[in-house]
Amino acid sequence: MTARPWTATVLTLFPDMFPGPLAHSIAGKALERGLWAVEARDIRAHATDRHQSVDDTPFGGGAGMVMRPDVVDAAVAASADAPGPLVYLTPRGRPFDQALAAEWAAGPGVRFLCGRYEGVDQRVLDKRRPVEVSLGDFVLSGGEPAALVMLDACVRLLPGVMGAAQSLAEESFENGLLEYPHYTRPAEWEGRDVPEPLLSGHHARIDAWRRAQAEEATRTRRPDLWSRYAAARDEVNMARNEGAAR
Amino acid sequence: MTARPWTATVLTLFPDMFPGPLAHSIAGKALERGLWAVEARDIRAHATDRHQSVDDTPFGGGAGMVMRPDVVDAAVAASADAPGPLVYLTPRGRPFDQALAAEWAAGPGVRFLCGRYEGVDQRVLDKRRPVEVSLGDFVLSGGEPAALVMLDACVRLLPGVMGAAQSLAEESFENGLLEYPHYTRPAEWEGRDVPEPLLSGHHARIDAWRRAQAEEATRTRRPDLWSRYAAARDEVNMARNEGAAR
Repeated sequence: MTARPWTATVLTLFPDMFPGPLAHSIAGKALERGLWAVEARDIRAHATDRHQSVDDTPFGGGAGMVMRPDVVDAAVAASADAPGPLVYLTPRGRPFDQALAAEWAAGPGVRFLCGRYEGVDQRVLDKRRPVEVSLGDFVLSGGEPAALVMLDACVRLLPGVMGAAQSLAEESFENGLLEYPHYTRPAEWEGRDVPEPLLSGHHARIDAWRRAQAEEATRTRRPDLWSRYAAARDEVNMARNEGAAR
Repeated sequence: MTARPWTATVLTLFPDMFPGPLAHSIAGKALERGLWAVEARDIRAHATDRHQSVDDTPFGGGAGMVMRPDVVDAAVAASADAPGPLVYLTPRGRPFDQALAAEWAAGPGVRFLCGRYEGVDQRVLDKRRPVEVSLGDFVLSGGEPAALVMLDACVRLLPGVMGAAQSLAEESFENGLLEYPHYTRPAEWEGRDVPEPLLSGHHARIDAWRRAQAEEATRTRRPDLWSRYAAARDEVNMARNEGAAR
């Protein structure tokens, strides 16, 4: 008997959007090999009136439509068999990051609730208490494109999907720095050389150059990440000095 | 003669990923109506050796592959006819936000350069100087899923795509606050009522309730946005008081 693979279950009004781009490249190959599975379930199947309504105008007025609590709740109830945390995609949520991708990838899967229009009625969120997650400070037409991105980030972390090759890029975010620049053949291209340390063959020099480049990029491009990194580094140094003084 | 619609040009190793999810729902209808266009161009068409190589191992060692500068540069050169800024998708870039979506949507289009593997050789970035943009602090298998999300954010801002209905959600981010909660029919559901102010019919009360909810959500969920909002608000109040004192 084979164990159930890591499974993404997506509650959506547009099931045809899945697997979409995830049918190609790394995620697509892993899907074919059965290393993960994705099931999109149509929220509209839980509509109860003859028009199959899923949304209505907002109380208090305003533009846009809001997804009905009864319809969404029935869709959530019917997904109780699916593994993993229930995640509602909304700009009001906790920002998605590499740590959350790693957390989800380590579990049995994830259930995404995708809102369209202005989102879902607050009462179904109050009742179901999903993890509310945001892809960033921008507005999308619905949760589906965000779910595709989050799945891509998770799938490449699953065992067997990328093997040892996956390590580098993650380490970059795990140590709190942006990535250093990359170079490949040809060694000379249009009068532009590869930086000399990378051709030296000395691992310590290469590591030192890459670390300096990553620090410089983080300091100049992302002062927010840099302050966190510098604070953590200072703490480590202080602890080391205290240890040495004893 | 019809004017050229807003055009997304995507340089990618996986052209079949486009339009993908954007063929559905709001973006899909706008695509059918000719309100925007998307053209994915295969970077591999610019490979020059008999194996059609696009990548090679990184100088200095390490896992992963790097996209060759000569191949990527040829693809960029061949896209000179496409409108809009050249954007390279990388976690090293400026974080994508609603302001950038609005800026791109106001122009003639955008050209995305999508890296795969560990990204592209730094020298082609040094030569072409694309705008480097990041979707967030996480690692994807390539730039394509990020491009799909950014396009979704842009397309819904194009004239005619959503009409007046689009205004609300953007305003939420434009005033620097998260959105207030939404409610729709039924007015009573499983013993949960719609908040009374929303049923009052008094616009001033509704606005005050929504503003208070938006402020509370921002304060508790996103202290980073809240400090920026509070600082801007204090400045406005100070200017008002100074005006009154004169």
